[in-house]
Amino acid sequence: MKLITVGTVAFDSIATPFESREKVIGGAATYISMAAAYLNGECGVVSVVGDDFPTAFMNELKSRGVDLAGLQIKEGEKSFHWSGKYHMDMNSRDTLATDLNVLATFEPNLPENYRDAEYVMLGNLVPAVQIAVLNQMNKRPKLVVLDTMNFWMDVAREDLDKVFGMVDVVTINDEEARQYTGERSLKKAAAKILTLGPKALIIKKGEHGALLFSQDEVFFAPAMLLDDVVDPTGAGDSFAGGFIGYLAKMNDTSFTAMKKAIVTGSAMASFTCEDFGPDALLKVTEEQLNARVNVFGDMVRV
Amino acid sequence: MKLITVGTVAFDSIATPFESREKVIGGAATYISMAAAYLNGECGVVSVVGDDFPTAFMNELKSRGVDLAGLQIKEGEKSFHWSGKYHMDMNSRDTLATDLNVLATFEPNLPENYRDAEYVMLGNLVPAVQIAVLNQMNKRPKLVVLDTMNFWMDVAREDLDKVFGMVDVVTINDEEARQYTGERSLKKAAAKILTLGPKALIIKKGEHGALLFSQDEVFFAPAMLLDDVVDPTGAGDSFAGGFIGYLAKMNDTSFTAMKKAIVTGSAMASFTCEDFGPDALLKVTEEQLNARVNVFGDMVRV
Repeated sequence: MKLITVGTVAFDSIATPFESREKVIGGAATYISMAAAYLNGECGVVSVVGDDFPTAFMNELKSRGVDLAGLQIKEGEKSFHWSGKYHMDMNSRDTLATDLNVLATFEPNLPENYRDAEYVMLGNLVPAVQIAVLNQMNKRPKLVVLDTMNFWMDVAREDLDKVFGMVDVVTINDEEARQYTGERSLKKAAAKILTLGPKALIIKKGEHGALLFSQDEVFFAPAMLLDDVVDPTGAGDSFAGGFIGYLAKMNDTSFTAMKKAIVTGSAMASFTCEDFGPDALLKVTEEQLNARVNVFGDMVRV
Repeated sequence: MKLITVGTVAFDSIATPFESREKVIGGAATYISMAAAYLNGECGVVSVVGDDFPTAFMNELKSRGVDLAGLQIKEGEKSFHWSGKYHMDMNSRDTLATDLNVLATFEPNLPENYRDAEYVMLGNLVPAVQIAVLNQMNKRPKLVVLDTMNFWMDVAREDLDKVFGMVDVVTINDEEARQYTGERSLKKAAAKILTLGPKALIIKKGEHGALLFSQDEVFFAPAMLLDDVVDPTGAGDSFAGGFIGYLAKMNDTSFTAMKKAIVTGSAMASFTCEDFGPDALLKVTEEQLNARVNVFGDMVRV
């Protein structure tokens, strides 16, 4: 398996100012693997669900190249459930409930054919699990990308610092980059994070696009302008999946390839925002994806 | 006079989370004319001050190509004074005081040689004064650019709608575009504003860059990444001045020219943020400006 991801596979209950939905299919690894397999052809998932997770959706994922050999199914237990409410701006949200369920005792156990993966996406999860996944690899992967969030900065800072030192690329949102470093300037925040080990940093700004930093280069990709944002849940994960899926497909980890990967990830994220849960992402055709990638180029061309 | 602007020439008292300054030189027309004259060589100013406005600074402006024949000086009266406080994010602020002083009774009276201007920048001001300036022109200028703000939406909506129908380009910030149109999506907000008459709309997003819309095209320019934002006051006006100054210099009002003009305006705005008041803008060299314009191209090149 060339590309694997670890992250949640879960249910989300989502309230936007316009509509609410209960127990939509969600989870970081769900969105990452869908977007990544779309580009790369396959993506292995390391995660856990209860026996309440729908078999039909697992079959849907499998039919799209998502390998579920690394997905543990716990009989008699419930899947992870997140509940959140978006503000009027649809760019910020409050978490209403986090029911860990099966995730409380999750210990990843990588199938043998995952342990030689060259591309590893560590989706947002407790840093100790992200570290455990890396420790099970037979050799250092070609590229490890880490996504994280402010919650882990508060409750697992030491592990988080440690995993930052074990990866090649970190993706984080702008406010979290500021919080993590204590720097208001994103330029200074990026420089600080890059001293921890990663060779590249992606700062996600939601509807304001994304920045890619290396030690001496910076690249900016705007976000797609949408008629309507229906539900941004999973946009960051679709972005990450599109990013690593593109790099795995091209088998290229250069800064230049990362620029194109960010544009591809941004296009993936824009589709996810157009409906609740993974519904919009499930319907994307190759023509639609290519057309959207081209729009990004047109938007910034002087 | 090829290029003129109307707007405030004023004093600002500015508090940031890090430092405060009393009675710094400010005003929309001050920043606009400085940035515009920098590019175009000259810019006429239609405004009013009291006898408290420093002669030395007026001479400094004149030495830089800013023509003050349209600046009324009211003996025994005080200049307009704005006082504001920036939030921790340095991207939003509260107005603490607005002392209109000479501005309360301001009636613009354009010098004869301003009335044939081809490029007119209507800086943020009561819409009735912006209209009065346009009504004094001998012929329809080649390009009229309007800047405005939410305050006028609340207190002078009718005049504001009217002046929107008299101009070629509107510049407005993202939250104001949403407020003005009632649309959350900037794409939809832009489409609505363009139905009012302007052929182009610039939506300013501060540290998140700027969008340029026409009926069928969209362009995005990121904001410069700065080590430190010292004081963003005047950034939007420096942007507008750089925008119209570039177009006047090139004598080109095409969409393609506007793209380059936005990048130039963004560079001007970035300098303004690096010190209080117009101090940083006063020190910019041509080499620095060109270098910064090039950074924008590098940032978005895939």
